[in-house]
Amino acid sequence: MRVMKRLFFVAIALFAMTGAALATGTGGPAGEISSLAEVQKYFRAIHVMAMLLVGFGFLMVFVKGYGRSALVATFLLVSVAIPAYFLKDTFGFLGGSRSEVDRLILAEFAAASLLICAGAVLGRVKMHQYVLLGLLFVPCYAFNEWILLDGGFGLIEPGRFVDTGGSVVIHAFGALFGIGVAVSMTTRKEYETPIESDETSDRFSLLGSMMLWVFWPSFCAALVAPREIPATVVNVVLALCGSTLATYVASLKLTGRISVADIANAALAGGVAIGSTCDKVPASSAFAIGVLAGTLSTVGFERIQGWFGKFGKKVDTCGVLQLHGLPGLFGGAIAMFAVQGIGRGAQIKGILVTVACSILSGLVVGKILSLAGRRATPYDDAEELLVD
Amino acid sequence: MRVMKRLFFVAIALFAMTGAALATGTGGPAGEISSLAEVQKYFRAIHVMAMLLVGFGFLMVFVKGYGRSALVATFLLVSVAIPAYFLKDTFGFLGGSRSEVDRLILAEFAAASLLICAGAVLGRVKMHQYVLLGLLFVPCYAFNEWILLDGGFGLIEPGRFVDTGGSVVIHAFGALFGIGVAVSMTTRKEYETPIESDETSDRFSLLGSMMLWVFWPSFCAALVAPREIPATVVNVVLALCGSTLATYVASLKLTGRISVADIANAALAGGVAIGSTCDKVPASSAFAIGVLAGTLSTVGFERIQGWFGKFGKKVDTCGVLQLHGLPGLFGGAIAMFAVQGIGRGAQIKGILVTVACSILSGLVVGKILSLAGRRATPYDDAEELLVD
Amino acid sequence: MRVMKRLFFVAIALFAMTGAALATGTGGPAGEISSLAEVQKYFRAIHVMAMLLVGFGFLMVFVKGYGRSALVATFLLVSVAIPAYFLKDTFGFLGGSRSEVDRLILAEFAAASLLICAGAVLGRVKMHQYVLLGLLFVPCYAFNEWILLDGGFGLIEPGRFVDTGGSVVIHAFGALFGIGVAVSMTTRKEYETPIESDETSDRFSLLGSMMLWVFWPSFCAALVAPREIPATVVNVVLALCGSTLATYVASLKLTGRISVADIANAALAGGVAIGSTCDKVPASSAFAIGVLAGTLSTVGFERIQGWFGKFGKKVDTCGVLQLHGLPGLFGGAIAMFAVQGIGRGAQIKGILVTVACSILSGLVVGKILSLAGRRATPYDDAEELLVD
Repeated sequence: MRVMKRLFFVAIALFAMTGAALATGTGGPAGEISSLAEVQKYFRAIHVMAMLLVGFGFLMVFVKGYGRSALVATFLLVSVAIPAYFLKDTFGFLGGSRSEVDRLILAEFAAASLLICAGAVLGRVKMHQYVLLGLLFVPCYAFNEWILLDGGFGLIEPGRFVDTGGSVVIHAFGALFGIGVAVSMTTRKEYETPIESDETSDRFSLLGSMMLWVFWPSFCAALVAPREIPATVVNVVLALCGSTLATYVASLKLTGRISVADIANAALAGGVAIGSTCDKVPASSAFAIGVLAGTLSTVGFERIQGWFGKFGKKVDTCGVLQLHGLPGLFGGAIAMFAVQGIGRGAQIKGILVTVACSILSGLVVGKILSLAGRRATPYDDAEELLVD
Repeated sequence: MRVMKRLFFVAIALFAMTGAALATGTGGPAGEISSLAEVQKYFRAIHVMAMLLVGFGFLMVFVKGYGRSALVATFLLVSVAIPAYFLKDTFGFLGGSRSEVDRLILAEFAAASLLICAGAVLGRVKMHQYVLLGLLFVPCYAFNEWILLDGGFGLIEPGRFVDTGGSVVIHAFGALFGIGVAVSMTTRKEYETPIESDETSDRFSLLGSMMLWVFWPSFCAALVAPREIPATVVNVVLALCGSTLATYVASLKLTGRISVADIANAALAGGVAIGSTCDKVPASSAFAIGVLAGTLSTVGFERIQGWFGKFGKKVDTCGVLQLHGLPGLFGGAIAMFAVQGIGRGAQIKGILVTVACSILSGLVVGKILSLAGRRATPYDDAEELLVD
Repeated sequence: MRVMKRLFFVAIALFAMTGAALATGTGGPAGEISSLAEVQKYFRAIHVMAMLLVGFGFLMVFVKGYGRSALVATFLLVSVAIPAYFLKDTFGFLGGSRSEVDRLILAEFAAASLLICAGAVLGRVKMHQYVLLGLLFVPCYAFNEWILLDGGFGLIEPGRFVDTGGSVVIHAFGALFGIGVAVSMTTRKEYETPIESDETSDRFSLLGSMMLWVFWPSFCAALVAPREIPATVVNVVLALCGSTLATYVASLKLTGRISVADIANAALAGGVAIGSTCDKVPASSAFAIGVLAGTLSTVGFERIQGWFGKFGKKVDTCGVLQLHGLPGLFGGAIAMFAVQGIGRGAQIKGILVTVACSILSGLVVGKILSLAGRRATPYDDAEELLVD
C-alpha cells in the first residue's frame, strides 16, 4: 500500500507539473498555445485595422470633391485615437491592465467609434478640428466603456451588459456623440449645402463598404474565445447577408429603384445590430436580426433622414444615425429577447447610460470645437489640401 | 503484483483520460489546438470573402458605366448564395453535417462559382434576375458537388476525384453554367452592344484582379490540413507568378501591345488551373502549370473569343470561359498526368459529369430567367440604380 | 521496491514518449503546434503579398495617365522576383535551406525591395526593362542580404546585425539601388517631364498607402517568434501613428497646406524606420522613432527633393529616397542608441555595406538597362498598353 501511495504522489506531482506548465504558459505546449492564440487575436486586430482605414475611410469618399480630405482625416483620426487610448490604458485610467493585443483591439474599437462620430460632421470641420475631436472623444468613449463593461461607479456588474461586438458601446455611442457634435456646431448655412456624388466616388464608397462587410466577422469576434469563434463569425456573416437582401428589397420598395447609398450603407446594418448578441444566438436569429436591421436602416435613410430634412437640419453627413445609431440601439435592445438568462436591468441601464453620455458629451464637445472656428465652404478638397 | 496491476490500471486510466481529452478536444491542449485550427480555417474563409466581394466584384467593374450595378449585383449574389447553401446543408440535403467553418467555406465556394457564372451574363440581366439566378444556381452546384465529392449516386468514390482547390467543381462548373445561361437567354440585339472601358474602370478592375491574386492561396488551401498548407500555398503563388509572366509574353505576341484586360484576367489562370493539384505536385510543376494556363487563357481571350465573335455571339461578357472554363478543365485534366497514383477513371468521370451538369442546367436556368424578362439596354447603371 | 522501480520505469518511459512526441513534432500536440505556427507565418506572408500588389501597386498610381502601366509593372515585378528568389534559394546559392513559408516570406521581402527600387524609375523604363530589372536586382539583393544576415565573407556574425523588419536590408537597399539605376540611365530630357496627378489618381494612391499602413505590422513581424509578436506589432502600429501625425504637422508647416502626396508617403516612414528595432524597443521609443521618421521624410519630400530639382535632376519618380532611403538608414542607425547591448560595429558595417552595394550595383544595372533602350515619352499608358 505504501508503494502505491508513493507512486500516486509521484504521478500526482508529475501531473501537477504538467498542469502548471499548461496553466502558466511559461514554456511547454500550453505556453506556445496561448502565444498562438494571441497571434490569432492580432490577425483579427489587423482585419479591424483594414476596416478602420480602408473601410471607414473609403465609405466616406462618396462625397464628390471631398474624398481626399476624408481619407486624410481617416488617417489622422486613427493615428490620434490609438495612441490616446494606449496612453489612457497604460496609466490605468478608467480600466486596468490588459495584454498588449487586447489593448490594441480596444484602442481600435475606440477609433472605430470615433470614425463613426466623425461621419456625422464630415466635411463641416477643419482638419485640426478632426484631431481635436479625436483627443476629446477618446476620454468620453472610455468613460462610457468603463461604466458599461468595467463596473464603473458600480452601476453595472462587469460581464452583465451583453454587447460582445459593440452594437451599443461602439456604434450607438459614436453615432449619437457625432449627432451631438453636429447639432451644437453646425450653422444654418452649412445645413443647406447639398452633397454630391459621382460614378467614381460611388465606386470608391462601395469599395469601403465591401471592406467593412468582409472583415466585420473579425470585428465582432476580435475578443471572443477561440472555441466560440466559429459560431460567432457564421452569425455575423448571416446577419450581413440578411441586411444586404433586406436593403435591396426595402430600397426598391421605398425609392422605386436601388439606391447605391442604401446598399453601401444599410447593407452593413446587420453587422452593427448583431454585435451585441453575435456569440449568443442561433444562426437563424442572426439572419433575422440582420433582416430587421437592414430594413430599419433603409427606412431610416429614405424616410427619417428626409423628415429631419424638413426641419432644415441636414446635420448628419454620412447618415451615421441610420447606419450605426438606430441599428446599434436595436441590437442592444433585441438582446433582451434573443438571449436566454440575460439581465434585462443591466441591458436597459447600459443603453440609457450610453444614450445620455454620448449625446451630452457630444453637445459639449461640439461647443468646444466651435471655438476653434467653422469652415466657410463645406466639402471641398481644395480648401485645406495642396492639390494640383 | 496486485499492487503493480492496480497502479497500472491507475496509470492507464489517467493516460486514457488525457488521451480522451486530447482526442475529443473537450479540454486539454488538443482541444485548444483544434479550436485554433478552426480559427485558422476561419481566417482563410475571410480571405475568400475578400476575394468574393472586393475581388470578383471589382474585376467586373471593367465595364464602364456599369460598375456600380456590378458591385451591387456582387453584394446580392453573395448574400443569396451563402444562406442558401447553409440552408441546404443544415437540412442535410445533398451532403451531410460539417463543422461551422467548413460549411462557411463550402458556401463561399458556391458563391465563387455563382459569381463566375454571373460574369458570363453581366450587364444583360436585371437585378432581380441575379437574385433568381443565385437561388436556381445553388442547388445545381450542390448537386454536381455531391456527385463529385460526396459519392452521390455512387458514381465516384468520395476522395477519389482530385480537385482540392476546385478547378473543376468551382471554376469550370460556374463558367460553363454561365455560358449555358447566356446562350439560352441572350437576344441578337444584345450580342451587338460593345463593351467600353476607360482609365478608371481599368484601374478598379486591376484592383479586383490583385485582390484575387493575393488571396488565391487561401482559397486553394482553405480546407487543406495545417501540415500541408506551406507546400500548397507556395505552389499557388508560383502558379500565379507563372501565369502572370506567360500572360505578359502571350499578350505581347498576340496583340503587339500589352492588353490590360489580359493581365487583369489571364494572370489569374494559374490560380484556376493549380486548384486541382495544389497540394499534390512539386513546386516546379506548379510553376509550369501556371505558365501553361496563362498562355491558354490569353490565347483564349485574344483568339477564341474573337472566333466566337465572328458568329455574332458575344455571349460571355467577362470572358469566364477563357479565365475559368478552359483553365479549370485543363487543371482537372493535367492532374491525371501530374499526380502519382491518381484514379484516372474517377478524374475523367468527374470532368464529364461537370461539363454535362453545368451546361444542361445552365441552359434550363437561362430559359427560366428569360420568363422574368430581358433588359432593353445592356450595361447601364442608370437603368436600375438611383444615381445622381 | 522492485515493483516501485518497475512502475517508475514504466511511468518514465511513458512520459519520455509523450515528451518526445511533444519535442520532435512528428505527431502529438507539438507537431500540430509547429504546423499551426507555420500557418500563422503564412497568414503574415499573405498580408505582405497584399502590400506588394495592392499596396505598392496602387501607391504608384498617383501618376495620372500611367496608373495602369504601374499596376501591370507591379504584377510583373512580383512575378519575376518571387520565383527568382525561390530558384536562388533552392540551389542553396547565397544562403541555405529554410522552411517553405520562410522562403516565401524572404522572397516577398526581395520583391518589396525591388518594388521600392522600381519606384525610382517609374514611368521611365519600358515594360520588358522592368522584367530585366527584376532579374538583375534579385542576385544583388541576395548578395547584400547574405553579407548582412547570413555571415557572407565572414564580415558580420549572423544574428549580430539588428534589422528585424528590414529598414536597411529591404528599404534602404531598394531605394539606393533605384537611385543608382535612375541616375545612370535617365536622360536630361526625361528629367524635365513634370508628374501630374488628379483627384482619382490621388484617391487610388491613398488606397495603396492605406493597404501598406494596415498590413505593415505583419511585414515587420513576419519572421518574429509568436511570443514576441504582440509587442512587435504594437510598436509598428504606434510608429505608424507617430509618423502620420508628424507628417500632418510637418506638411502644414512646410507647405502651408496639407500635401496629399506627403500623407500618402511620409505617413508610412514610421513603418520603414521601426523595422530594424520593432521587436527590441519599448512602445514609447517606437512612437518617438515614428515621429522622427515622419518628420524626416516630410522634410525630405518638401525640401531635399526640391534641392535636387535645382540641379535639374528629377531622377526619383516616387521619391523613394525620402520614403524608404532616409527613414531606412535612420532606422538602422537609431538602433545603435535605442537597443541595449547592440554591437555597434556590426550595425555600422552593415549600413555601410548596404549603401555601397546598393548604389554601385544600381549604377551598373542602370547602364545595362540603358542598352535595352530608353523610353521616348515618360508616363503614358498608351505607349505600351492596348487601351481603349
